[in-house]
Amino acid sequence: MEKTNVIAHFMGFPGKLKDKVMEIVKKTMKIGKDDPRKIWHAAKVGLALTLVSLFYYFRPLYDGFGQSAIWAVLTVVVVFEFTAGATLSKCLNRGFATLLAGALGIGAKYFADLFGKEGEPIVLGFLIFTLGAVGTFTRFFPHMKRKYDYGILIFVLTFSLVTVSGYRVDEILELAHQRLTTILVGAATCMIISLVVCPVWAGEDLHKLVCGNLDKLATFLEGFGSEYFSFSEIEESGKASKEDKGFLQAYKIVLNSKATEETLANFAWWEPGHGSFRLRHPWKQYLKIGVLARECACHLQALTSYFNSNPQAPTEFHKRIEEACTRMSMESSKALKQLASSIKTMTQPPSSAAETHLKNSKTAIDDFKAILATTKTPLLSNKLDLLEIFPAITVASILIDVINCVERISEAVEELSVKAHFKKVKNKESSPSPEKQPQQQLLHRGIVKPVVDDVEGGDDSVVIEICGGTVAAAVEVNSPGGTKGEAQKDRV
Amino acid sequence: MEKTNVIAHFMGFPGKLKDKVMEIVKKTMKIGKDDPRKIWHAAKVGLALTLVSLFYYFRPLYDGFGQSAIWAVLTVVVVFEFTAGATLSKCLNRGFATLLAGALGIGAKYFADLFGKEGEPIVLGFLIFTLGAVGTFTRFFPHMKRKYDYGILIFVLTFSLVTVSGYRVDEILELAHQRLTTILVGAATCMIISLVVCPVWAGEDLHKLVCGNLDKLATFLEGFGSEYFSFSEIEESGKASKEDKGFLQAYKIVLNSKATEETLANFAWWEPGHGSFRLRHPWKQYLKIGVLARECACHLQALTSYFNSNPQAPTEFHKRIEEACTRMSMESSKALKQLASSIKTMTQPPSSAAETHLKNSKTAIDDFKAILATTKTPLLSNKLDLLEIFPAITVASILIDVINCVERISEAVEELSVKAHFKKVKNKESSPSPEKQPQQQLLHRGIVKPVVDDVEGGDDSVVIEICGGTVAAAVEVNSPGGTKGEAQKDRV
Repeated sequence: MEKTNVIAHFMGFPGKLKDKVMEIVKKTMKIGKDDPRKIWHAAKVGLALTLVSLFYYFRPLYDGFGQSAIWAVLTVVVVFEFTAGATLSKCLNRGFATLLAGALGIGAKYFADLFGKEGEPIVLGFLIFTLGAVGTFTRFFPHMKRKYDYGILIFVLTFSLVTVSGYRVDEILELAHQRLTTILVGAATCMIISLVVCPVWAGEDLHKLVCGNLDKLATFLEGFGSEYFSFSEIEESGKASKEDKGFLQAYKIVLNSKATEETLANFAWWEPGHGSFRLRHPWKQYLKIGVLARECACHLQALTSYFNSNPQAPTEFHKRIEEACTRMSMESSKALKQLASSIKTMTQPPSSAAETHLKNSKTAIDDFKAILATTKTPLLSNKLDLLEIFPAITVASILIDVINCVERISEAVEELSVKAHFKKVKNKESSPSPEKQPQQQLLHRGIVKPVVDDVEGGDDSVVIEICGGTVAAAVEVNSPGGTKGEAQKDRV
Repeated sequence: MEKTNVIAHFMGFPGKLKDKVMEIVKKTMKIGKDDPRKIWHAAKVGLALTLVSLFYYFRPLYDGFGQSAIWAVLTVVVVFEFTAGATLSKCLNRGFATLLAGALGIGAKYFADLFGKEGEPIVLGFLIFTLGAVGTFTRFFPHMKRKYDYGILIFVLTFSLVTVSGYRVDEILELAHQRLTTILVGAATCMIISLVVCPVWAGEDLHKLVCGNLDKLATFLEGFGSEYFSFSEIEESGKASKEDKGFLQAYKIVLNSKATEETLANFAWWEPGHGSFRLRHPWKQYLKIGVLARECACHLQALTSYFNSNPQAPTEFHKRIEEACTRMSMESSKALKQLASSIKTMTQPPSSAAETHLKNSKTAIDDFKAILATTKTPLLSNKLDLLEIFPAITVASILIDVINCVERISEAVEELSVKAHFKKVKNKESSPSPEKQPQQQLLHRGIVKPVVDDVEGGDDSVVIEICGGTVAAAVEVNSPGGTKGEAQKDRV
């Protein structure tokens, strides 16, 4: 019996192995599909390694560098990172640290020579201890850690290697020269391949991440606005909420994006100008927007617990606030979408675009408050059950917080657009009339220059440039027109 | 005039330098004061480096290892990390990866030899490309990245070094042996120093971080409860809120602790048993608690915007809900404190401790809802201005969410206490009578075995073990007694 089990186990082994392999293949396919740049990155590292190993196989190169050519291989493996910024940061850190530490190390050797055969190890030991300890401690300074962590590591490493190696000083000079040259060759190979072959820009990733996050918040608010207060279509919404659960989860990614954003911003600092990003693009401003986006996501998390709390039989009060609350949610969503597309396309939209939506949402707040204020009239008070309207009031209150947050995001995006010199989109009127709207709702990729009907306003042209690839998406310009009209009617 | 400026500039230089140096000294002092283990760490790295460099200075060792002894220095610099777990992880990864890649590399050399002088570089180039690309891609798998990222890096590195180096195979064997031995010496030095001299345990840090975070949430709720609804002492609270602003900010640290928690949990996985932590301590459970704590912190962030919104002249409604809301806030704060101290001391408190507080806070919710339900009576409705009570209702609603969250935290802590085999604190009665309370409120460090008045209950002894150092803090056991009595009165 037991024997059969063992045999069955061994017979089953190829099957299990096959399953395991299939699982790994599936995972690989998924990673490759989600971000094909990862496959490219792997191929780039392989290429860089193979190129550097040519130093050995082509005799002339080998004769020039000798055994120290392995440092080029070592450099490639250690230094090549996914994003161009990270690779540059490591290459430059490694290069300069090696140069500096090598020079210091040779100096230390000269200095220790003065103390004779007996004294030399003691002096060198003391120097290594001091530099090792001081260097390690320096890595705890937040500013140093952020930018020069790897450089300090290499500094301590090279200094120790140079002082420890038992060579005489003239041999050291030769060795240091060889080592530095090979490291430069390795680093240069990495930098060139990283910058030329399908470069992955940390800055672009940060840019996409931040506007993607704003989009996620907008999608949540849109979904929430159309679901929570829609008492009229309550049967359908029950269905829809199950299908659309995705938008309920997306904000969680926003909540957890802090570490990624900061890493990307650090690497982006090292990158040269590329695409529409200049050398000193205000990456820090993206972090500010990120902080506010996370704050907003916090409020959204509070909203989720109310998602299924709307009463089956809405009271008169619910019906009264429904319109205002839906408008609060929808208008803040539109404002966020507008802001996201403004970052995405790197254009300053007509000054009113996001602001109009924000104004509309504020009007909705005023309307809501007006409803609250009138609800104390004797007419309603008899029917008013505080316990029943309690969740709806809370939702409205959280929405007000969300709108405040969106307003601060809008200010931060405005600041970014100034600092990063976003292209200005001119238009004569601060808000377009509702009739013009159909021409101005553009759903295009690429550069769009709509011909406006009333030609006498030469300033009225709208220029939209959408970055290629995944950034491109539907862009709404001046869409608020219609909604704003409504909001103003309500106000009157 | 200009000359004077230049001279003044140069004369001012020593002063500026002095300022800069003073600033650095101050920063250093601050880092050292905040966490003296960082100074120790720097000294430990210096010590390890100096020890390893002895390989060169003592002739017998030098003769045995030759030039490859620099690999020991390299290993120490690259591998020595702040926490013991991180150091172990890197040492073990480096050791095993070098062994494996070395063996594979020698195999590849043999294999390539078969293809003759011309074919060898091509075969080796192909192998290096393949292994480099596959290895690099493997680092994108989340599971591999978390635990074996460094190992894969070293694997690719060593494989490339071995196959690239132009030695004949017998020379390679000698070299591989030397390299492996020196790496082992370096790694062993690091591991021993890291584990023996003032070890910094990632696990302990995670443990402290998680209960510190719960404490921060509790402090916020305590402060909020005593400030927001305290209409009676409104003049004083104005003063206090300025002084106590710290507790309003502390929750932000909780919001941003995700990355740190995950890194620490990863490193803790590598650590051997130490102190009260066993080898397979359920570190993942801490991450679960962390997620819930961040969710709770999100709700607290929503509360902050209401902190100064309480009306100067509270209405009757405000006064009516004041007591219930304060109780909601205070009791959830006490529950959190109890949970934090339960983790801190690694004891399972008498089953009722945190639960009692939770029950009390739920009773407070019921009371609050009862007040809401009765507020519709004609008696109050005339005075009731919805707009005025709007913020207070929202605050209460958020507090309810907080309590739900605390309940889930309590469940997660319960789960942790089972998985981590927390010591059970036995008591006969599920909740202590208020009269016993004075004896059981213990504010001690170390092991406390209170002598209980009625000796016939042998089960009544309370054992508290508080970990040494910074973990030790005031511990409340069974304190809810009094408050619970009140809550039950309210219920009746």
